[in-house]
Amino acid sequence: MTPAARRDALRALLRTAELDALLVTDLVNVRYLSGFTGSNAALLVPADGERGTRLATDGRYTTQAAAEVPDVPVLIERACARALVADAGAAGIRRLGFESGHLTVDAHAALLEVARDNGELELRRAPGLVQRLRAVKDETEIEALRTACAAADAALADLIAAGGLRPGRTEREVAADLEQRMRQHGADGPAFDTIVAAGANSAIPHHQPTDAVLAEGDLVKMDFGALRGGYHSDMTRTVVLGRPTDWQRELYELVAAAQAAGRAALGVGVEVASVDAAARDVITEAGRGAEFSHGLGHGVGLEIHEAPALSATGAGTLASGMAVTVEPGVYLAGRGGVRIEDTLVVRPDGAELLTLTGKELLAL
Amino acid sequence: MTPAARRDALRALLRTAELDALLVTDLVNVRYLSGFTGSNAALLVPADGERGTRLATDGRYTTQAAAEVPDVPVLIERACARALVADAGAAGIRRLGFESGHLTVDAHAALLEVARDNGELELRRAPGLVQRLRAVKDETEIEALRTACAAADAALADLIAAGGLRPGRTEREVAADLEQRMRQHGADGPAFDTIVAAGANSAIPHHQPTDAVLAEGDLVKMDFGALRGGYHSDMTRTVVLGRPTDWQRELYELVAAAQAAGRAALGVGVEVASVDAAARDVITEAGRGAEFSHGLGHGVGLEIHEAPALSATGAGTLASGMAVTVEPGVYLAGRGGVRIEDTLVVRPDGAELLTLTGKELLAL
Repeated sequence: MTPAARRDALRALLRTAELDALLVTDLVNVRYLSGFTGSNAALLVPADGERGTRLATDGRYTTQAAAEVPDVPVLIERACARALVADAGAAGIRRLGFESGHLTVDAHAALLEVARDNGELELRRAPGLVQRLRAVKDETEIEALRTACAAADAALADLIAAGGLRPGRTEREVAADLEQRMRQHGADGPAFDTIVAAGANSAIPHHQPTDAVLAEGDLVKMDFGALRGGYHSDMTRTVVLGRPTDWQRELYELVAAAQAAGRAALGVGVEVASVDAAARDVITEAGRGAEFSHGLGHGVGLEIHEAPALSATGAGTLASGMAVTVEPGVYLAGRGGVRIEDTLVVRPDGAELLTLTGKELLAL
Repeated sequence: MTPAARRDALRALLRTAELDALLVTDLVNVRYLSGFTGSNAALLVPADGERGTRLATDGRYTTQAAAEVPDVPVLIERACARALVADAGAAGIRRLGFESGHLTVDAHAALLEVARDNGELELRRAPGLVQRLRAVKDETEIEALRTACAAADAALADLIAAGGLRPGRTEREVAADLEQRMRQHGADGPAFDTIVAAGANSAIPHHQPTDAVLAEGDLVKMDFGALRGGYHSDMTRTVVLGRPTDWQRELYELVAAAQAAGRAALGVGVEVASVDAAARDVITEAGRGAEFSHGLGHGVGLEIHEAPALSATGAGTLASGMAVTVEPGVYLAGRGGVRIEDTLVVRPDGAELLTLTGKELLAL
């Protein structure tokens, strides 16, 4: 889908929301709707047609904006959002939606001042409209996610083949190694700060790699992903260095069963909360509910965390083309934890797996 | 300075601002004031003393919060800010400041609902208080910046020594090479997306590396930095592949002179706008003012861009211990551009240079 086609889809949402235009300030949304990747920008999308669409950015990006956004007039102005509100006022727009889940209280106050100088213009909270569009990926986006996932798969396979997961290395070394191998497989960089957590550290869900040394008998949890063309992959695998003990094997099998149940629950029209429940019930029934201390998963795309949230309190249903993670974990403080995570795409006939690394317990 | 000492410094600002407490929602500020590095948290800092200080985070971080923040009680609650507003209300706090430059309109609306249930509690806009403290670095922070800058210096020296800047390589390869070498020199990762821009691309101030191939005669602009222990370094160097032409040499000398003027202008009590002017005047007098399309520099620390801004519209004066970049650039669209950037610390007797790579025009 071209940026222009996405703006067209947004216009349908604007008309339903009875807005004359949307002021887009979230840079990820600006990128999605225009193709612009600079670090300061805003976009005005009127509801009544492509005429009146404007991108604003500052002087650092004059050349880049012209190259990336050939089909939209560009306003060069450091205070992007203010310039577009004034522009909207001059164009006779009255009900101007803004991204209230992104705009700060101070930025909003500054826009209210501009609106005041344009008597008829009214700023209306309009959160999450572009996020709703972004949640459903087109095939080009899914291909980008697939390529990003493949880079992560290949990196982990290389790391294991090279003996890179062994006692004596530090968490930090393994993390840097994984990131470098993802780059060798075409990643622009890591999708987020790589987590490598060994031994008792694996019980910390979002542990940052330290100089802690991997030891024989450790559970090693790796949560990592590749960034490619703006799209993020996300995968977690947990391995054992040496022969797994009984508790490690039990813990692993429990999480693997929960993860399989979560994946199996994915489908078009399914409530997101019921996907979380499908996996959580497996863990709760095993008496480990309190040790699964986070949601089951999240949408993934131009951001590492985006709509939809797969959690107990999540609302809404899955649609075909949504890309999500399924990542239950059980964490035994002071001993170790296991998390298993895939990135998948919801399809009419179930879910397509994008992260292809196997999920049998690997003893290295 | 310990987190507790920083909270103490904040309390003085709170009393001046007539606030009973500050609700800190900006995660960088939470880290600065508590040591907590997780991805979901808020901190309540009462003005009247350490008692009543609370960190809130969610269940993923129970273990990590206890380890990183041993001196503050931790509330485990996914909706961190709401929990702390309720807590503040119960503790009798009336004038609760919030970070209006960070909190979104929707998040503010949610907090207003909680405040409504605590009749006496009033939310007050209090932007930038912690940023003001963070702008002045203590010696531990300066040492962290120095180490980060050293990793970037060493990486560039290695890259050049290894012949890594040569015709035939792509921008992307050079960027990945620089980032890997920074890691080898102790960086946790790049401080931001490394910019490598060759030939005409060097005229794009914030160019992202592409598969464009470096060619004989190109200006190659590299803007990069190392992240280490949360602190960011920032440096730009521009080199020529082969023998510089006259216009390249002239352009380089102009930017170098402007950069030296900017560095020389740094000093305690100096207006930030006058530092920008010192460098900008050199470029304007050469008739290139329009081609220097951005501010002169910015503060750097736990964020790559933080207070103070060194720009024509910036307000305020420099204080001893502020860490800033000085980075003028002149960009000739379609031909090429030069930017030269250092990270420095303002000292009573001028400025201390942290990025030590030479600034003579390097012809490779």
